[in-house]
Amino acid sequence: HFQRALAEVKPAFGIDEDEFSDRMRNGIIKFGPKVEKLLNNCGLFVEQVRNSQRTPLVSFLLEGPAGCGKTALAVKLATDSGCPFVKMISAEDLVGYGENAKASKITKIFEDAHRSRLSCVVVDDIERLIDYARVGPRFSNVILQTLLVFLKKDPPKNRKLLIIGTTSNKRVLEDLEILDTFNSVQNVPQISTRTEFSSVLKELKAIESDAELNLASAAFARPISIKRLIMYAEMASQGSTTGRAERLSQILVDNE
Amino acid sequence: HFQRALAEVKPAFGIDEDEFSDRMRNGIIKFGPKVEKLLNNCGLFVEQVRNSQRTPLVSFLLEGPAGCGKTALAVKLATDSGCPFVKMISAEDLVGYGENAKASKITKIFEDAHRSRLSCVVVDDIERLIDYARVGPRFSNVILQTLLVFLKKDPPKNRKLLIIGTTSNKRVLEDLEILDTFNSVQNVPQISTRTEFSSVLKELKAIESDAELNLASAAFARPISIKRLIMYAEMASQGSTTGRAERLSQILVDNE
Amino acid sequence: HFQRALAEVKPAFGIDEDEFSDRMRNGIIKFGPKVEKLLNNCGLFVEQVRNSQRTPLVSFLLEGPAGCGKTALAVKLATDSGCPFVKMISAEDLVGYGENAKASKITKIFEDAHRSRLSCVVVDDIERLIDYARVGPRFSNVILQTLLVFLKKDPPKNRKLLIIGTTSNKRVLEDLEILDTFNSVQNVPQISTRTEFSSVLKELKAIESDAELNLASAAFARPISIKRLIMYAEMASQGSTTGRAERLSQILVDNE
Amino acid sequence: HFQRALAEVKPAFGIDEDEFSDRMRNGIIKFGPKVEKLLNNCGLFVEQVRNSQRTPLVSFLLEGPAGCGKTALAVKLATDSGCPFVKMISAEDLVGYGENAKASKITKIFEDAHRSRLSCVVVDDIERLIDYARVGPRFSNVILQTLLVFLKKDPPKNRKLLIIGTTSNKRVLEDLEILDTFNSVQNVPQISTRTEFSSVLKELKAIESDAELNLASAAFARPISIKRLIMYAEMASQGSTTGRAERLSQILVDNE
Amino acid sequence: HFQRALAEVKPAFGIDEDEFSDRMRNGIIKFGPKVEKLLNNCGLFVEQVRNSQRTPLVSFLLEGPAGCGKTALAVKLATDSGCPFVKMISAEDLVGYGENAKASKITKIFEDAHRSRLSCVVVDDIERLIDYARVGPRFSNVILQTLLVFLKKDPPKNRKLLIIGTTSNKRVLEDLEILDTFNSVQNVPQISTRTEFSSVLKELKAIESDAELNLASAAFARPISIKRLIMYAEMASQGSTTGRAERLSQILVDNE
Amino acid sequence: HFQRALAEVKPAFGIDEDEFSDRMRNGIIKFGPKVEKLLNNCGLFVEQVRNSQRTPLVSFLLEGPAGCGKTALAVKLATDSGCPFVKMISAEDLVGYGENAKASKITKIFEDAHRSRLSCVVVDDIERLIDYARVGPRFSNVILQTLLVFLKKDPPKNRKLLIIGTTSNKRVLEDLEILDTFNSVQNVPQISTRTEFSSVLKELKAIESDAELNLASAAFARPISIKRLIMYAEMASQGSTTGRAERLSQILVDNE
Ligand SMILES: Nc1ncnc2c1ncn2[C@@H]1O[C@H](COP(=O)(O)OP(=O)(O)OP(=O)(O)O)[C@@H](O)[C@H]1O
Ligand SMILES: Nc1ncnc2c1ncn2[C@@H]1O[C@H](COP(=O)(O)OP(=O)(O)OP(=O)(O)O)[C@@H](O)[C@H]1O
Ligand SMILES: Nc1ncnc2c1ncn2[C@@H]1O[C@H](COP(=O)(O)OP(=O)(O)OP(=O)(O)O)[C@@H](O)[C@H]1O
Ligand SMILES: Nc1ncnc2c1ncn2[C@@H]1O[C@H](COP(=O)(O)OP(=O)(O)OP(=O)(O)O)[C@@H](O)[C@H]1O
Ligand SMILES: Nc1ncnc2c1ncn2[C@@H]1O[C@H](COP(=O)(O)OP(=O)(O)OP(=O)(O)O)[C@@H](O)[C@H]1O
Ligand SMILES: Nc1ncnc2c1ncn2[C@@H]1O[C@H](COP(=O)(O)OP(=O)(O)OP(=O)(O)O)[C@@H](O)[C@H]1O
Ligand SMILES: [Mg+2]
Ligand SMILES: [Mg+2]
Ligand SMILES: [Mg+2]
Ligand SMILES: [Mg+2]
Ligand SMILES: [Mg+2]
Ligand SMILES: [Mg+2]
Repeated sequence: HFQRALAEVKPAFGIDEDEFSDRMRNGIIKFGPKVEKLLNNCGLFVEQVRNSQRTPLVSFLLEGPAGCGKTALAVKLATDSGCPFVKMISAEDLVGYGENAKASKITKIFEDAHRSRLSCVVVDDIERLIDYARVGPRFSNVILQTLLVFLKKDPPKNRKLLIIGTTSNKRVLEDLEILDTFNSVQNVPQISTRTEFSSVLKELKAIESDAELNLASAAFARPISIKRLIMYAEMASQGSTTGRAERLSQILVDNE
Repeated sequence: HFQRALAEVKPAFGIDEDEFSDRMRNGIIKFGPKVEKLLNNCGLFVEQVRNSQRTPLVSFLLEGPAGCGKTALAVKLATDSGCPFVKMISAEDLVGYGENAKASKITKIFEDAHRSRLSCVVVDDIERLIDYARVGPRFSNVILQTLLVFLKKDPPKNRKLLIIGTTSNKRVLEDLEILDTFNSVQNVPQISTRTEFSSVLKELKAIESDAELNLASAAFARPISIKRLIMYAEMASQGSTTGRAERLSQILVDNE
Repeated sequence: HFQRALAEVKPAFGIDEDEFSDRMRNGIIKFGPKVEKLLNNCGLFVEQVRNSQRTPLVSFLLEGPAGCGKTALAVKLATDSGCPFVKMISAEDLVGYGENAKASKITKIFEDAHRSRLSCVVVDDIERLIDYARVGPRFSNVILQTLLVFLKKDPPKNRKLLIIGTTSNKRVLEDLEILDTFNSVQNVPQISTRTEFSSVLKELKAIESDAELNLASAAFARPISIKRLIMYAEMASQGSTTGRAERLSQILVDNE
Repeated sequence: HFQRALAEVKPAFGIDEDEFSDRMRNGIIKFGPKVEKLLNNCGLFVEQVRNSQRTPLVSFLLEGPAGCGKTALAVKLATDSGCPFVKMISAEDLVGYGENAKASKITKIFEDAHRSRLSCVVVDDIERLIDYARVGPRFSNVILQTLLVFLKKDPPKNRKLLIIGTTSNKRVLEDLEILDTFNSVQNVPQISTRTEFSSVLKELKAIESDAELNLASAAFARPISIKRLIMYAEMASQGSTTGRAERLSQILVDNE
Repeated sequence: HFQRALAEVKPAFGIDEDEFSDRMRNGIIKFGPKVEKLLNNCGLFVEQVRNSQRTPLVSFLLEGPAGCGKTALAVKLATDSGCPFVKMISAEDLVGYGENAKASKITKIFEDAHRSRLSCVVVDDIERLIDYARVGPRFSNVILQTLLVFLKKDPPKNRKLLIIGTTSNKRVLEDLEILDTFNSVQNVPQISTRTEFSSVLKELKAIESDAELNLASAAFARPISIKRLIMYAEMASQGSTTGRAERLSQILVDNE
Repeated sequence: HFQRALAEVKPAFGIDEDEFSDRMRNGIIKFGPKVEKLLNNCGLFVEQVRNSQRTPLVSFLLEGPAGCGKTALAVKLATDSGCPFVKMISAEDLVGYGENAKASKITKIFEDAHRSRLSCVVVDDIERLIDYARVGPRFSNVILQTLLVFLKKDPPKNRKLLIIGTTSNKRVLEDLEILDTFNSVQNVPQISTRTEFSSVLKELKAIESDAELNLASAAFARPISIKRLIMYAEMASQGSTTGRAERLSQILVDNE
């Protein structure tokens, strides 16, 4: 019942390129050389999938803590890949389906990708896709097995496929033997120096004067994810412009 | 059968603003500065969700022991938020549905909220919503995964959403990785000083003379929740007015 | 199939006041002051639910070992409460239904109670209601969650509800977090002195002469439940009147 | 499907008195005073259920190792009880039904018994009835809970019920909290002395001369169940009459 | 679907005598006195079931490591028993049915056997029949319970039944309490001396000259099952006749 | 639903010989004597199944770490076997079916093979076929039991069957008692010497000059699978021809 009811509401599954921009609402701030390096590394895989005859399937996994920007980066890379067929598999679009229906939809996207000359599939937040819960642990073995097959299955002759995965839980993916199915695993960096910290605040126009930046950065004590820093900057921005730096410092201290 | 039979009895799901008042039957007694501070802190999130372009989804969790007033406070904050769309997701309203139907109804409320310009959704007593039992432990992974998605899913462009969660079991929510999906976690205080204790009794008109208040407060030995104190005050109120303070003292001692 | 077949046989669910007497077949023998005190304590909750505006829901749990008289006492208190709506939820009346049907019937009784001005619901032998087995452990989480909601849910405005629970397994109810949902927990005493022991035998007219009472009491060595003592007295009563005391002594010794 | 197919083949469930004799094919050999004592003890419960007004439900459990004669004794006692309604609940008659159907059939027998003035229900091999397997452990909680209710449920006014249970696994019944629902637990003895051993062989006419009896008894070293001894005596009886005693000795030694 | 589809293909279940020969393709090689002794022992049970009035059900279990010849021996004994009704229950014939259908088919065979004057049922590879997997462990409790009942259920008056079971996993059968339901457990020997080893090779005409037999036997170091030895002898037989003994030696060494 | 939907898309199950070539896209590079030896060993089993009357079923398992070439080798051996009936059972072709349907399709292939005079069935990636997940662990017992039966079941008279299995997880197959059902277990080697390493690069025409080969081999430090080495060679090949050896060295170092 549940399934069918929702199915009518969401006929289009696997968002296409146009809808991708929503997933990187706040752009990609190049807060340091690690970001550039990551984008370059990943770019090489795009090149390989285009050129190589021996490896028609190339895959890599973006892994890093919550909010470090995995989804935004995967979307950026997929969009820039120039592949004519780009699709995203995301738990958000699968809510309301049973595990068999979810596995079926994932199968459908991969089978469509196998039919296109050059495709890119983003498999976002893999632990969420397989309904993973640490307590138990529980997960959908049906979806897991479906992913395990398609993450390794070569497209047919004269077809190429690039798979970009993301996860916040590398360890779980190792235990479930998903990790090894990727050709490469790339760590997505957090903001981990004051310089990076300041450059993000500047870019966001959250704090602009050097004095204030110094004040705020002084409270920066441990690596923070880009998503969380944007949230804190917005919290600090409520009310008058004066006091932002102090408020941001306070928030950082409170949440340590 | 069960599901369907009840469904006819309860067509309206997710109580709306009008019905909210029932959930704070005994009002909000400002028994000390911690209550004021909590209301102020939470008020800032309301402000942020209205103003920020970068963070269209803001969420916070009220956590504290049984009866400390989480539901009443969540209802108060939601009512005062001024959001045109306010809904409550509560186990009371989901009794009699299977886990798929429950997940479907939760999905429906969030999808409605995403369609409104500015919404507030209260997710009350999360451990109860996911049918959590410590023995096992058992819980509905279907409902858990549905919540995990919607607690992080941004509303579409030009829509804003405030989510207020409540729980008596912060530890369980941490284990289930729900806790981290909230932008902020706020502790709801118990009554923990004699001054607070006396001010509640006065406000309730349960005990009014200073002598009696002193007598009753003398038995106050450890923090107590507001709901429990109201229950004890009512127990002590049975029978003649004289002897209330003694009876209350006795109840406190018996239940230590 | 099972469910339906039986359903036709038992249209009336939740026995009403008339049928209550069967559950205290052997009356309430006031074998000592602890019995009186318990009846008085519980009487206060009845008074409170009638009078208090702030606490429209009052609940207490009768707990004690097998056969100590919990069901008989709950029935006695419910009958004497004077509530116009009195219902009993008991595993005996739920045999043959699946867990969803059981939860549905429990829901129905509470919803009916919420519709009456002043109601009393007896929730008998809670571990049996939730199909609890120590091995596993196993239990019906569906029924458990239904109870957890209704044991805390306030009746609507201008309605009052008294809930009387019983259990032989306080520890299990604590683990399942049911215990805390009751406003008060009352221990039901066993027969634990020779005086109490003799007074029960006298009341039952099982043994009447003082000499015989002395003889029988001499074998009384450890607390015994009222139900078991009645059973032993009946066993000893088989055959001729002479020798009853000796036979009872022997039974007590054999079963130590 | 399975269920239905078989149901047509076995319309009569719960064998009645006539079919009882099959279950004590080899009679009851009174091999020693322990057998007499057991029959007498159990006879008292039959008397009690007929006479007592206070205890309309009397139950006892026959427990002992595999083959010690529990089923034969239960059948003997039930047949001799003189109850107008006598039924047996046995796993043999429930093969091919699912757990709900089994629970339903058990319910049916008890409800029929409750309708008769004076009934006797034999609940044979309880661990088998509940589909118990030590590995896991596994068992049918549906059937267990059904038994737990009916083993304690009083028949209605003016009805009497005697329940005779049997088990080879007292420990499991204790863990499942079935044991405590019986008013009394009676141990069924094995053959444990040479005198008992010889008297069985004589009664069976397996070995008749004293010399041979002495020879065979010399190999008797540890308690043996009556069913097993009958089996060994029959094995030894194959072939010529001479050598029986030696062959029996050998079998006893081989199986030690 | 699966079930039904296959059902049409295999209307006849429980292969009858004719098809038995396939299960002892390579005959019974009497490689030593242990084989003779086993056949004699088991022959006695056949005699007993024919003659005894007191024990209408006789059962024994053939147990031993993989490939030691259990199935072939059971088939031999059943065929030679002279019973008019002989059936085999084997996992091979149950592939494609669900656990309820499997239990139903097992029930059918036993019920047919109970209707025949003198029957023999082979219950082959019991751990496979109950879908046993060491990991978990997992097994079908439905099938297990069905077997537990029929392995102990006497046929009706004037009917006789011989049950021959086989297993490679005596320990598991003990844990599942199947072992004790058999009247006797017989160990099936492996080839454990050079003499036995040579006599098998001779009988198979795999190696015939004494010199070669000596050479091959020299590599015999530990007990080996008859099935495995036949396999190795065939491997060694590939290619020219010369070198067989050396090749066999090599295979034995490689697989140690 | 899922099942049916996909079923229409994939009428042909169990790819036949023609489609086999896709599974050894990059050929079989004979990088060292171990590869030759493996092919010879396995060739003997093909010979045996053709010739032996006593062993109509011959089976062997190719086991080795991920990417060592098991599937390619199994396909090569099956293709070269000259059997008129050659089929592959592979998780890729079973995606989208439930466990019963999967077991049914596996059954179908084996039953077809049993009908052909001389057949070869490849059972690829057995842990994936049974939906194995290390966490739990979980697996389909239905599929496992089906395989356990068919891996041991002899084809009917005058039919021959060769079974080639593959696995990356020998340990799991041992725990599930699949390993012992194979007549032989063959280890598939990795590339483990610099000579082998160089010979692969040469064969692939990835690096051709001796100087570059020396440079690249210097970074070879631990055994690597053929599939992975092909992947790395392709990565290194992106961009200009110069620098390939350095890039390959770098990739080897990065992935150590
Ligand atoms: N350098 C950057 N890398 C990634 N995201 C960035 C960067 N700069 C800004 N952003 C913004 O930061 C946010 C990152 O959030 P995103 O959801 O991609 O993180 P995530 O790691 O996928 O989080 P989660 O662990 O919750 O899935 C996005 O709004 C994105 O536009
Ligand atoms: N300062 C206060 N904060 C919260 N509740 C208050 C306060 N003052 C009075 N109350 C009253 O106390 C009661 C608090 O009960 P409430 O159900 O909200 O607690 P809770 O923490 O949600 O309990 P539970 O843990 O059982 O869900 C309400 O009746 C409310 O009207
Ligand atoms: N003072 C008493 N309190 C309770 N029951 C009494 C008392 N005096 C006599 N009785 C009788 O003792 C019996 C008590 O049995 P009851 O079934 O109520 O016990 P219980 O504790 O509910 O048992 P169980 O643990 O099996 O549910 C009833 O027959 C009741 O009439
Ligand atoms: N004194 C006796 N007590 C019981 N059974 C006896 C006695 N003398 C002879 N028998 C015979 O011994 C056999 C006992 O078998 P029965 O099936 O009753 O044992 P059981 O304990 O129920 O076995 P199981 O543990 O397998 O259920 C019956 O055939 C019965 O006729
Ligand atoms: N003395 C013997 N006993 C048994 N089998 C023999 C003997 N001599 C030769 N055989 C042959 O050996 C083979 C034994 O295989 P069988 O399948 O019976 O063994 P098993 O123990 O049932 O194996 P598994 O453990 O795989 O079920 C048969 O082909 C049989 O014909
Ligand atoms: N000597 C060789 N042995 C096997 N494969 C080889 C060899 N030389 C080249 N190859 C190529 O290497 C690749 C081996 O991949 P294959 O999928 O067969 O490995 P696998 O061990 O089955 O991997 P997986 O563990 O992922 O199932 C194929 O593309 C094959 O053509
Ligand atoms: Mg993300
Ligand atoms: Mg609350
Ligand atoms: Mg009771
Ligand atoms: Mg018995
Ligand atoms: Mg066998
Ligand atoms: Mg492979």
